[in-house]
Amino acid sequence: MQIRLDRTSRVPLYRQLADQLRRRIASGELPPGTRLPPERRLAAMLGVNRSTVVSAYRELAAEGLIAGHVGRGTVVVDPNRRPGAEAPARGVPWPQLFAPLASALYDPALEDASAAASRADVISLATGQPAPECYPISMIRQLLDEALHSQGARLLQYCPAEGYPPLREAIARWAQRSGIRCSPEQVLVVSGSQQGLYLIARALLEPGDLVAVEAPTYVGALQVFRALGARLLPIPIDEFGMRVSVLEQALEHRRPKLVYTLPTFQNPSGTTLVLERRRRLLELAARTGIPIVEDDPYRELWYEAPPPPPLAALDTDGTVVSLTTVSKVLFPGFRIGWVIAPWAVVRQLTLVKQLVDLDTNPLMQWAIWAILERGLLESHLEELRVTYRERRDLLANALRRELGDALRFALPTGGLYLWCELTGGLRARDLLPEAARRGVVFAPGESFFVDPAAGRSWMRLNFTYPNPTALVEAARRLSHALAAVREAREFVRRATTPIV
Amino acid sequence: MQIRLDRTSRVPLYRQLADQLRRRIASGELPPGTRLPPERRLAAMLGVNRSTVVSAYRELAAEGLIAGHVGRGTVVVDPNRRPGAEAPARGVPWPQLFAPLASALYDPALEDASAAASRADVISLATGQPAPECYPISMIRQLLDEALHSQGARLLQYCPAEGYPPLREAIARWAQRSGIRCSPEQVLVVSGSQQGLYLIARALLEPGDLVAVEAPTYVGALQVFRALGARLLPIPIDEFGMRVSVLEQALEHRRPKLVYTLPTFQNPSGTTLVLERRRRLLELAARTGIPIVEDDPYRELWYEAPPPPPLAALDTDGTVVSLTTVSKVLFPGFRIGWVIAPWAVVRQLTLVKQLVDLDTNPLMQWAIWAILERGLLESHLEELRVTYRERRDLLANALRRELGDALRFALPTGGLYLWCELTGGLRARDLLPEAARRGVVFAPGESFFVDPAAGRSWMRLNFTYPNPTALVEAARRLSHALAAVREAREFVRRATTPIV
Repeated sequence: MQIRLDRTSRVPLYRQLADQLRRRIASGELPPGTRLPPERRLAAMLGVNRSTVVSAYRELAAEGLIAGHVGRGTVVVDPNRRPGAEAPARGVPWPQLFAPLASALYDPALEDASAAASRADVISLATGQPAPECYPISMIRQLLDEALHSQGARLLQYCPAEGYPPLREAIARWAQRSGIRCSPEQVLVVSGSQQGLYLIARALLEPGDLVAVEAPTYVGALQVFRALGARLLPIPIDEFGMRVSVLEQALEHRRPKLVYTLPTFQNPSGTTLVLERRRRLLELAARTGIPIVEDDPYRELWYEAPPPPPLAALDTDGTVVSLTTVSKVLFPGFRIGWVIAPWAVVRQLTLVKQLVDLDTNPLMQWAIWAILERGLLESHLEELRVTYRERRDLLANALRRELGDALRFALPTGGLYLWCELTGGLRARDLLPEAARRGVVFAPGESFFVDPAAGRSWMRLNFTYPNPTALVEAARRLSHALAAVREAREFVRRATTPIV
Repeated sequence: MQIRLDRTSRVPLYRQLADQLRRRIASGELPPGTRLPPERRLAAMLGVNRSTVVSAYRELAAEGLIAGHVGRGTVVVDPNRRPGAEAPARGVPWPQLFAPLASALYDPALEDASAAASRADVISLATGQPAPECYPISMIRQLLDEALHSQGARLLQYCPAEGYPPLREAIARWAQRSGIRCSPEQVLVVSGSQQGLYLIARALLEPGDLVAVEAPTYVGALQVFRALGARLLPIPIDEFGMRVSVLEQALEHRRPKLVYTLPTFQNPSGTTLVLERRRRLLELAARTGIPIVEDDPYRELWYEAPPPPPLAALDTDGTVVSLTTVSKVLFPGFRIGWVIAPWAVVRQLTLVKQLVDLDTNPLMQWAIWAILERGLLESHLEELRVTYRERRDLLANALRRELGDALRFALPTGGLYLWCELTGGLRARDLLPEAARRGVVFAPGESFFVDPAAGRSWMRLNFTYPNPTALVEAARRLSHALAAVREAREFVRRATTPIV
């Protein structure tokens, strides 16, 4: 639930909140029976006093729109049972018409984090964005101007669905740097790697199909697979990446349609699949005929030594569909990513892409072509590796200093995230409202697991998006939030400890 | 099948053709059993001598890749039955893994037209693009430079999935010009209207659902609905647009999940739904609770008088989801369109959009925002209306002069197309290869109908993309092609007329 309060407005905050909830109830966005968040939790998320939420809820209750129920909290009232309300005799009953989908996408933990992250005073460790200070803005200005000057109308037309042909060639050359040998016709340009993932899932999966995923794994992938009706088979990881032997055992009884892996600087855990396991995974795929989807957006962001070759480079049997994006190494706004796969797969994904959005913006493709062909990405990556290593170390040291043993993590050798475990049995989602109130948010670990309970004590902290000062401040705020939550728990524990 | 021959290469054309077919067979793109086009037809499509195709086919046949069968034509040979070929023991059997989809997307008539349109010497009347001479390139250069200068990194970040907030506000204001009253929260920015259509279909349709469409209608919509497993209920049109009374009768026995309509300067027919029928359609929707999807990309391109208000403006019951794009009024490359709908629908579509590609490029959205807010689109539209009316009249007059009674069409009062019927029982697809050989292509009518047979004699001619000289030349080439086809038919008729 996205609530935005304008503190500069003359409309009181509680009225703004009531207005926004009222409209969501009227539109059906909050259908009858929806439980509203507890007053205290919503207040913490929005960074307002509890009394603001209390007043808003009271106003809506007076209008008969919501009601408090013991044991169920505050819920939206069924309009047909509202005194004086009439059931609409005309019009479209929209919520009844929607295909089943939303349940796959609703993640309360992520909603909490994102609601709080929209506040200007909050430092977000919850995102996955590169450092905005490093965006090569003047380079982009020059390239776009050059593109329109030299190519003109050609870059404003429709474009082949597979991608701008010179970019497909440039990507095939770029991929050779990491050992992937492919022809331009094995490259499909997509509007960001989320689109690539959707196209792959849409081309391969039917409802009921099984997909093997790492535990933990990328949230957006879980959502896509679930939305398409797939069942999920979580495979645990350790410090050497996915436990391929566990996958191998699982295959004795179950047959996934595909294996989805982030083998390099995994999101969220930061771990990298070691070479021996890469070979074993590929052997397994070739032997069983089960394809591997390799999601590889972080490969170039290494801080100690280059990672092992991608699965797509080691593959000799055409089992790998590889997916990457410029969003993590340049910036996300251009929405450019690519898939490298056997030709038959590229052709099938192209058919799906034509359905989904016809083609990808050719002006953006030209700019990425120029960046690859002129060697501009390589020098940019060198700068990022230095900046990000510094930020990683800064946040890691600040966390150790401020939180000590309360937080456990391994220093990742690449990528964008610290993957941290709260010690002492604390649930990360219980820490989030207090952290948000103190101006810092993170991604709670539950969202990254097929079974949320497995991620209760985990949290993902991004170290690239906030600047150095913000990173240190974020650690301080986290530590204060943690202290406050622990103190409250201790108080409750004492109050409820029976006197012997 | 996209075949590209390079006439400047030293590799003979037949070898180029054989190489490309061989690779498509090897990749599985042309799986065993695929029927290759007859030699004469493929030659006409590619603009080469028949002997080129004969030589290429002969080479592939010698390699055992294809074989001629009486009554089946030339087909790709099953590798397991190829002498000496071994079935692969390892790897992924890709074609067996794909979800059912391709059959919905394969349209041989469109493939024919698009294969020929890629030749430089061909004038394409088959596309739906605005005049490239009118693209406001220098305006776009300035706007993008201003955007990056004034907004910098903010326009290179991720963006809310619903769209860049100032653009949503600008769209809500722009929509008021045609009488649509909506809040910015009822606007969803999409990556082109094809994406909007996909999101709507994905949010509402489940396999087996029925969708009412006009006959004829937009090809891309038919493809999306079919790919999602929907069944189609064609409703005929006349010169006043969709025959709403026929829809009304159909609803007595069948219940579509939605009604898809292009009420204004319809693609492909150019007809406009008259006001009285608009009201009747809305009344029907409100009474039955069946939503209307209004696809409205051509509304601003009127050449006589402004069209009646959009359904979305006349709707008082929240039954309409309206869809538009800048692709037809500016240029397609920016991939920007929008949906206006009841809030609950926008919210549901946003969830699907997050799955499909997360968000739409914010830099492009800023540029469209600036164009709308600064009144730049209105003056551009005035220029287009003059240019396009001239081109429409030029092509119409040239066709009347060159083809006379052989082609029947009504002059459309807006949009991009002449919708023409070949008289004398000739099938448009039979004219296409000869037309392609003479350097002109068009969109055969069959693709626009649920039942292709209903469109046999129809063809859609675009009059905005080719320049004036090309339009006149296209009519001349069409007339020569038609004469040649008729002469051949006459010859065959005489040769087979029994001597009495």
